[in-house]
Amino acid sequence: MINFEKAQKIVNSEIPALTLKREPTELYDPVKYILSIGGKRIRPAMVLMACSLFSNQVSHAVRCALAVEVFHNFTLLHDDIMDNSELRRNKPTVHEKWNRNVAILSGDVMSILSYSLIGECPREYLAKVLELFTDTALKVCEGQQFDMNFETSNNISIGDYLKMITLKTAVLMAASLKLGAILGGARPADSYLMYEFGKNIGIAFQLRDDILDAYGDTRKFGKKIGADIAANKKTYLILKAIETADEKSRKKLNTLISSKGGDIEGKIAEVIRIFDRLGIKEKAEAKSWEFYNAGIHALDQVSVNDSEKGALRELARQLLERER
Amino acid sequence: MINFEKAQKIVNSEIPALTLKREPTELYDPVKYILSIGGKRIRPAMVLMACSLFSNQVSHAVRCALAVEVFHNFTLLHDDIMDNSELRRNKPTVHEKWNRNVAILSGDVMSILSYSLIGECPREYLAKVLELFTDTALKVCEGQQFDMNFETSNNISIGDYLKMITLKTAVLMAASLKLGAILGGARPADSYLMYEFGKNIGIAFQLRDDILDAYGDTRKFGKKIGADIAANKKTYLILKAIETADEKSRKKLNTLISSKGGDIEGKIAEVIRIFDRLGIKEKAEAKSWEFYNAGIHALDQVSVNDSEKGALRELARQLLERER
Repeated sequence: MINFEKAQKIVNSEIPALTLKREPTELYDPVKYILSIGGKRIRPAMVLMACSLFSNQVSHAVRCALAVEVFHNFTLLHDDIMDNSELRRNKPTVHEKWNRNVAILSGDVMSILSYSLIGECPREYLAKVLELFTDTALKVCEGQQFDMNFETSNNISIGDYLKMITLKTAVLMAASLKLGAILGGARPADSYLMYEFGKNIGIAFQLRDDILDAYGDTRKFGKKIGADIAANKKTYLILKAIETADEKSRKKLNTLISSKGGDIEGKIAEVIRIFDRLGIKEKAEAKSWEFYNAGIHALDQVSVNDSEKGALRELARQLLERER
Repeated sequence: MINFEKAQKIVNSEIPALTLKREPTELYDPVKYILSIGGKRIRPAMVLMACSLFSNQVSHAVRCALAVEVFHNFTLLHDDIMDNSELRRNKPTVHEKWNRNVAILSGDVMSILSYSLIGECPREYLAKVLELFTDTALKVCEGQQFDMNFETSNNISIGDYLKMITLKTAVLMAASLKLGAILGGARPADSYLMYEFGKNIGIAFQLRDDILDAYGDTRKFGKKIGADIAANKKTYLILKAIETADEKSRKKLNTLISSKGGDIEGKIAEVIRIFDRLGIKEKAEAKSWEFYNAGIHALDQVSVNDSEKGALRELARQLLERER
C-alpha cells in the first residue's frame, strides 16, 4: 500500500494543472490561491491510500482524489465568508484578499470543478461514485447549517453535536476512504467498513480539533488558542462541561458562552479554568480515543492482509495525536 | 411532440417533492421558496420537449429537466447576492427574506442537488449527460464573472458582450435542448444541431431582455424600466449606441454610464433619448432576429419530420416576442 507522504506527493503534483487554460483569471485566480496555500491533503490521500489497499493501480483514482480536495476547499472558502474569518492557513482568506462576490463565485466554480473531476472516473464506477460524492456533499452542507443553527441555540445536546460534526466533517473522510475502496474494486462489505473507519476517525479528528482550540500550543497549532470559546462555539468541551458542572458553574458557563465583546482573554481563561476543574480535557480525549478505536475496529474487519493496513493505521494515529 | 404547457405542467408537478424529507429546514426552506415563487420553467421544458422530439417517452428525462431548473435557480440565488438585488419575480430575494449566509449555503446545496438529479438519469447516458451539464455549469460561472468584470471596464466590444451572454445565458438553454436530445436517443449530429438552436435562441432571448429593460411596458414586464441603465450595465443597446453615436453623443453616453447617484430618472430618460435618435431599438431587434433565424436554421436541419417541430418553433417565437 502507498503511504501518506507518497499520496500527498501525487496530489500536490496534480493540483497546479487543474485550472490551467481556463478563463477569466478573475474567477480562477482565487481557486489557484486557495489550492496552493497548503492544507495537508488528508482527504485525497485517503482516496489514494484506500484504493491502493485493494488494487496495485491508483492512477485511475487520482481525479477522484482531486475532486474531494477541490470540494473540501470549496467548503472552506464559503465557510470563511459565512464565519467572517480573516485568516486561513495563516494567509488572508479569499474574501479578504479579493472581495465577497469573488469568494462566492470562485467557490461556486470549485464545487462544479469537483464534479468535472468526478466525471473523469472510469465509466464502470461512475454511477456509484457520483451518488456517494453527491450524497456526501449534501450532508456537508447540512452539517454546516446545523453548525450555524447551534450558534443561536442554547439547547444543544452532545448527541446533537456529534451528529453535526459527523455531517460537517466526518462523512467527507468516510466518503474519501469508500471512494478509494470502490475504485480499488473492493467488495461492498469492505467499502462499507472503510466508510465506517473514516467516519469514526473523522469524529475523533474533530474532537481533537476541539481539544487543541483550548489546549493547543500556539506555536504548533498555528491558530489563536481559545478562538472557539471567544466565538461562543458549542464544542464538545463546552457541552461536556455544561453536562458535568454543578448548578453554579453551569450558570457561569452559560453566561460566558452567551456574552459578546468585553474581556475576551479573561473569558477564555475563565472557561479553561472550569474545564480544568472538571477534567474536561481528559474526558474529551477519552471520547476521541473511543471513536478512534471504533474506527480501527472497522479497519480490522476489512478482508485484506493486516500487514497491508499499516499506512492507514499510521495516518489515523497521526490525525489523533496531532498538535496542529 | 409535447408542447410547452404540457412540459411546464410536468415540471411544476415534480418540484414540491424535491426537498421533501431533507433537514435542517433552515437550509431547505429557502430552496423551496425560490423554486416556488414562479419562473416560467423554460429550460426544463426545453429538456422535455427536445426529448419528445426524438422519443415517445419523456419520463426518464424528468429528473434531468429538474436538475437544469434547480441549477438555474441556484445561479439566480447567488447572482442576487452579488448584485444586491432586493426583488426576484416581484418577491423578496432569499438574502433579503433570510440573510446572506443562508443565501450562500442554500445556493450551494441547490448546486449539489442539481447533480443529485443528474445522477438519476439512465446509466447508459450518465457519462455524456454529466459531462455536458458540468461543462455548461462552468461556462455559466465564467459568464457571470465576465459580467462582473464588465461593470468596471470601459472597453467592452459588442463581441465581448455577445461572448459573455453566450456563456451566462445561452449555453444553459443550448445544453437543455441537447440534454433532451441525448436522452431521446438522438444522433450526435442532431444533438449538435439542437445545441446550436438553443444557443442562438438564448442569445436572442437575452437581447430581447436588454430591449425590454429600456422599452418594456412596466405593467407587463414586472420590473422597473431602465434598471440596466441605472446600474450602468453595458447592454447591447448601450454598446451599439456608443458604436453608432457621433463624437459628442458618445462622450455624453460614456459620462452617463459611469455616473453614480444623482438624478437616476433623468439619466434613464436621457439615455433612451439617445437610443431613440440613433434607432437603437430597431438595431437591437434586428440583431435579435438575426440570432433567432440562425437558431431556426439549425432546428430546420434536425433530421425529424418538420411537422414534429411546431412546439419548439412556437416556444422560440414566444421567447423573442415576449413582453415580459
